Amino acid sequence: MMREVAVVGIGETRFGNLAESSLRDLIREAGEKAIADSGVPKESLQALYVGNFNSSFLCGQSHLGALTAEELGLKNIPTTRIENACASGGLAFRTGMLMVALGVYDFVLVGGVEKMTHQETEIVTSALASAADSDSETELGATFPSLFAMIANRYMHEFNTPREHLAMVAVQNHDNALLNPDAQMHKKITVEKVLSGFPVASPFTIYDCSLISDGAVFVVLTTKEIAKSLHSERPLVEAIGSGHSGDSIRLALKKSLTTFDATVQAAKQAYEMSGVGPEDIDLAEVHDCFTITQIINSEDLGFFDKGKGGFAVENGLTRIDGDMPINPSGGLKAKGHPIGATGLSQIYEVVMQLRGEAGERQVRNARLGLAHNIGGTAATCCVHILRRDG
Amino acid sequence: MMREVAVVGIGETRFGNLAESSLRDLIREAGEKAIADSGVPKESLQALYVGNFNSSFLCGQSHLGALTAEELGLKNIPTTRIENACASGGLAFRTGMLMVALGVYDFVLVGGVEKMTHQETEIVTSALASAADSDSETELGATFPSLFAMIANRYMHEFNTPREHLAMVAVQNHDNALLNPDAQMHKKITVEKVLSGFPVASPFTIYDCSLISDGAVFVVLTTKEIAKSLHSERPLVEAIGSGHSGDSIRLALKKSLTTFDATVQAAKQAYEMSGVGPEDIDLAEVHDCFTITQIINSEDLGFFDKGKGGFAVENGLTRIDGDMPINPSGGLKAKGHPIGATGLSQIYEVVMQLRGEAGERQVRNARLGLAHNIGGTAATCCVHILRRDG
Repeated sequence: MMREVAVVGIGETRFGNLAESSLRDLIREAGEKAIADSGVPKESLQALYVGNFNSSFLCGQSHLGALTAEELGLKNIPTTRIENACASGGLAFRTGMLMVALGVYDFVLVGGVEKMTHQETEIVTSALASAADSDSETELGATFPSLFAMIANRYMHEFNTPREHLAMVAVQNHDNALLNPDAQMHKKITVEKVLSGFPVASPFTIYDCSLISDGAVFVVLTTKEIAKSLHSERPLVEAIGSGHSGDSIRLALKKSLTTFDATVQAAKQAYEMSGVGPEDIDLAEVHDCFTITQIINSEDLGFFDKGKGGFAVENGLTRIDGDMPINPSGGLKAKGHPIGATGLSQIYEVVMQLRGEAGERQVRNARLGLAHNIGGTAATCCVHILRRDG
Repeated sequence: MMREVAVVGIGETRFGNLAESSLRDLIREAGEKAIADSGVPKESLQALYVGNFNSSFLCGQSHLGALTAEELGLKNIPTTRIENACASGGLAFRTGMLMVALGVYDFVLVGGVEKMTHQETEIVTSALASAADSDSETELGATFPSLFAMIANRYMHEFNTPREHLAMVAVQNHDNALLNPDAQMHKKITVEKVLSGFPVASPFTIYDCSLISDGAVFVVLTTKEIAKSLHSERPLVEAIGSGHSGDSIRLALKKSLTTFDATVQAAKQAYEMSGVGPEDIDLAEVHDCFTITQIINSEDLGFFDKGKGGFAVENGLTRIDGDMPINPSGGLKAKGHPIGATGLSQIYEVVMQLRGEAGERQVRNARLGLAHNIGGTAATCCVHILRRDG
């Protein structure tokens, strides 16, 4: 029998090129904010889960669970670092959520962090490429932009999608990020600007690609029962659904390039667990490492019919004031993509929205939110559904 | 309410300098062996947990959960890579065990792997050093041999321990490894040989240090109930206790250099959960990254009084035919230390012993075994207790 779980505290750093902040600085800032926001005394925290992709390579620092606990002054708590490429943060959240739901711990801290911008671009590219298959992809020259560009080309071919639809995803996410003080990008762009941007891998220009970012996000989880006694001054946010699925790490072995099986299955699990469907969701943070990724996943999550995700963007459905708001935070594309933190950045945004604390980017009457996080070319997927109680 | 968990399948590669085997080869060999040994059809496996320390850096390959599932032909199962330095394998086991115990999954595959020997020694040293604190330890020139050498010097000072006691740990573990066909070292050594070995960090010579190894180990977990229906031909092995604790990543912040808090606390949890005490344990695999590590941990696990661990080795208590056999496999010191696989290598040995399949190194009447795995300078510790049913 699972216990009901609440997200009782959240904290994040600004995302961006944070040259003045070390890995430890990022952890301390976001971790302390989340703990303070939760009202849970440090001594009560019983376990820590940390999502981090590749600080082993980028910072010469592994064993981030122990480092994080030490930096936050959490004595002797059990720590676990989780790494599933860009889904590390979402998977850390799921693991912590299950531990509370199943009664292993009453108070869990979950964090995600990545420090990337201090390295040269080639080093960062190598670090990122390690999320693909080294033998059959990376060693042959594939990078993530090139892999997702193949996906984009196939999708545009199958569904007669105008190139402009991809660009519109970028434009909209940049618009949303203008309303997010923690976002890396505060820069309005246009479809023309995207199309004429620096070419990366056809059809992508630089504006179709997510950012290289430093950042950290932490959340505190406890039972709904306990959470009720902690904060009467604001709405309680519950985590009511969780799904986790996988697929081959090699793009060549996937059944389809235009449907992500891992997303379809993780979403199915999360919907079943929570008893809600895609039609009930008021807003979603959807993994948008590239513009095409958001479109495909928005379909695989059940928000739009296959092939219609781009049209939904064109018609304004995914805007903050649309019928199905997607990435009000600005997404990976414009809020930023500090890899290990990204899945928790999505949770952070959903909690802000459900609490009604999202300021200028607030989605009206937000009661149910979804966070969708993938790793690699959708070789890992985690989907979470959160609800405002009352 | 927790369900009873059984280890129903085990498989491992030989440990050593396996130049002919890639990361994928190691995974395939050990994974297929474990699945075959379990009798569980591949299609029934519902989740995968992989312990890996640093293939991101050593092999340019992250996202090992997805890679492993693909290599073993496990379609669309959820995967999780876990990294807590040298405790990655033990922690992967704990996470999988909890998921079965708590009813999230009925069949879980847990693996650990590391491919190290293809890299130059300096690269391996850098990779290993990332398990310590980069700012205050690694950057100042500390390496794991030097950190544990400080611990050894303090221990010898506090307890008047003869240098020879450390050497005797190495001699005994080499003796045991001679009886283990999968062990990397098959070489008898003497106390004199250890003392006159190549100096590494005083008091350690090369013979006080564990090995750089390639290797993989996988296990299959299910409920005791299901396990009973799978194998009537051999004893059933249950996982009855699990403990997980932590400590500061920096050696300088630890309360004591000669007691590992994380071990003491993880052991306490595992003993409480299983309802047995150190006096009930028939054999233990104890983390011996350096000779001193085994001695200190054998005390912190409650097998010997503080300061007496070396005397226990001298008096033969820890031999395979002694009162408290330790590291019958040969341990990290002589079986080998493929980092991410090490915690599972200990589980493998305990299961072999409890099944009565350990051949020449069989501990007589082995009914209760313990596996103890630490990461860094004991900044993470996992302790597991296994029992032969019937």
